[in-house]
Amino acid sequence: MHSPDILYCLETIGIVAFALSGMIVARKANMDPVGIFAIAFVTALGGGTLRDLILDNHPLYWINHQEMPVLILVMTLLFTCFRPLSRLRESNIVLPDAIGLGVFSILGAQFALDQGHSWFIASLLGVITGTFGGALRDTLCNEVPFIFRKDQIYASISFAGCWLYFVCRWALANDTLALAIGLLFIVAIRLLAVHFDIRLQRDAEAHG
Amino acid sequence: MHSPDILYCLETIGIVAFALSGMIVARKANMDPVGIFAIAFVTALGGGTLRDLILDNHPLYWINHQEMPVLILVMTLLFTCFRPLSRLRESNIVLPDAIGLGVFSILGAQFALDQGHSWFIASLLGVITGTFGGALRDTLCNEVPFIFRKDQIYASISFAGCWLYFVCRWALANDTLALAIGLLFIVAIRLLAVHFDIRLQRDAEAHG
Amino acid sequence: MHSPDILYCLETIGIVAFALSGMIVARKANMDPVGIFAIAFVTALGGGTLRDLILDNHPLYWINHQEMPVLILVMTLLFTCFRPLSRLRESNIVLPDAIGLGVFSILGAQFALDQGHSWFIASLLGVITGTFGGALRDTLCNEVPFIFRKDQIYASISFAGCWLYFVCRWALANDTLALAIGLLFIVAIRLLAVHFDIRLQRDAEAHG
Repeated sequence: MHSPDILYCLETIGIVAFALSGMIVARKANMDPVGIFAIAFVTALGGGTLRDLILDNHPLYWINHQEMPVLILVMTLLFTCFRPLSRLRESNIVLPDAIGLGVFSILGAQFALDQGHSWFIASLLGVITGTFGGALRDTLCNEVPFIFRKDQIYASISFAGCWLYFVCRWALANDTLALAIGLLFIVAIRLLAVHFDIRLQRDAEAHG
Repeated sequence: MHSPDILYCLETIGIVAFALSGMIVARKANMDPVGIFAIAFVTALGGGTLRDLILDNHPLYWINHQEMPVLILVMTLLFTCFRPLSRLRESNIVLPDAIGLGVFSILGAQFALDQGHSWFIASLLGVITGTFGGALRDTLCNEVPFIFRKDQIYASISFAGCWLYFVCRWALANDTLALAIGLLFIVAIRLLAVHFDIRLQRDAEAHG
Repeated sequence: MHSPDILYCLETIGIVAFALSGMIVARKANMDPVGIFAIAFVTALGGGTLRDLILDNHPLYWINHQEMPVLILVMTLLFTCFRPLSRLRESNIVLPDAIGLGVFSILGAQFALDQGHSWFIASLLGVITGTFGGALRDTLCNEVPFIFRKDQIYASISFAGCWLYFVCRWALANDTLALAIGLLFIVAIRLLAVHFDIRLQRDAEAHG
């Protein structure tokens, strides 16, 4: 078993990363500070909330850890007042989004596994936890969500990373190491996919 | 009482029908295989998930019956690889959508009734269970959901079918027969409504 | 403590106000009677449903109080059949929307507080309860939700009103009076904000 401290650190990293990605997209959509906070909130906490509702896990993570909404509030204030942060552009979204995807996919899968669910159900919950916050963000800001865009692989990386984590956890009998491998796999492959423009389907096929 | 086997068969038929309708719409929206699976998943399981969350019925249906997400995964693989299936067009959506609407409306109403809710609450849950999956499918694929389209009646058929089921169940004291009557009513009327273009409101009135 | 009767009256006022706002927007979007009922239903009951799901409070309000969905059904029939009501225009939405925002924000916050949550968490739940129904209404009718519009303050009023309610409740030791102050504050400031076009951010800044 990994210690709760590691999980808590990871959770915080994921929330900061997704909140940042939410603020960047909300700013581009020209929202006021309240809108920016709302988008950061649903991006960072939406995936975990859906996971907790699906698994009937109460109280919800952010109600139990109210420092997380406070953190997002402070980040929003910094983001809207502090010039260098507000200069972040849409291209800067790729790294925080990849980190958030990796952290929440693996944590969602690990949480479902610890509750006794099968690898398959746990991988579905990993994908749901990892992608739902970003999908809400993009829908509310009138973008096509990454998960439904054809231009790069997204949900499949989350799915593959969850299974890699399961195999490592089973083979290595070391959950912390397995967690790190799965997480780094998702972040690295997602960044490579964006950089080299890897797709599941070529346009020619799509129209064929 | 009807046997659990009949309910399980119906549930499976509804899931296959709605998953198929989701795959057809997703393909038309030009999604890659992962997007097609995601749309098929939320179309087939979205209504039941919302019903279970509203009624606090845990674990959710698809977590308890993990063969259903597996079935949708297999259907997606067949659909994307097997030529004749991928030739299905948007006009082919009407039949599976009507079957899914009928099955989930009646099963949602029956489930709420068995939990001791009133006919009125049970009929609302029937409509929610029957229409939510398709509404998610259409929203995510950028279509106006059937339930909000004026061109044909949709939710009202589901509502009427639920009440027909209640009356038959009460009058016949045979749940299986009542279930069949309600279900066939919804499927038949929905197909007739599409064929004869039956509406609640004429355009002239709408603008009047 | 205030009596349950006062809470019940407020809840009813909020539901009627939000249902009316939903019917006006749905009519403008040219929906048929079933669509008008569906929009009125999610506008009036969406915020409370999300609050109850987040706080794991079952059965949901409208399942326990089935007179509320019946009331919305009757209102829809009146609205679609009775000429003077159907002459209500989009500009008439401001008052019912402000009343619904005020009632549900304060009731959401009060409910969370009574369950033992902190002021901060309770204020977030107040904002969620107060704004979610209207956000669903606007999204389903293809409008940009008030909460994400830059043209007037909306969610910030709800947030400020919740904190005013907390301070009054703590200072006055009279929950009913505090409730009234918070509620009237939200409704009054929202109406003033629309009338004098108060914003958090000027357009010039937004583009700067």
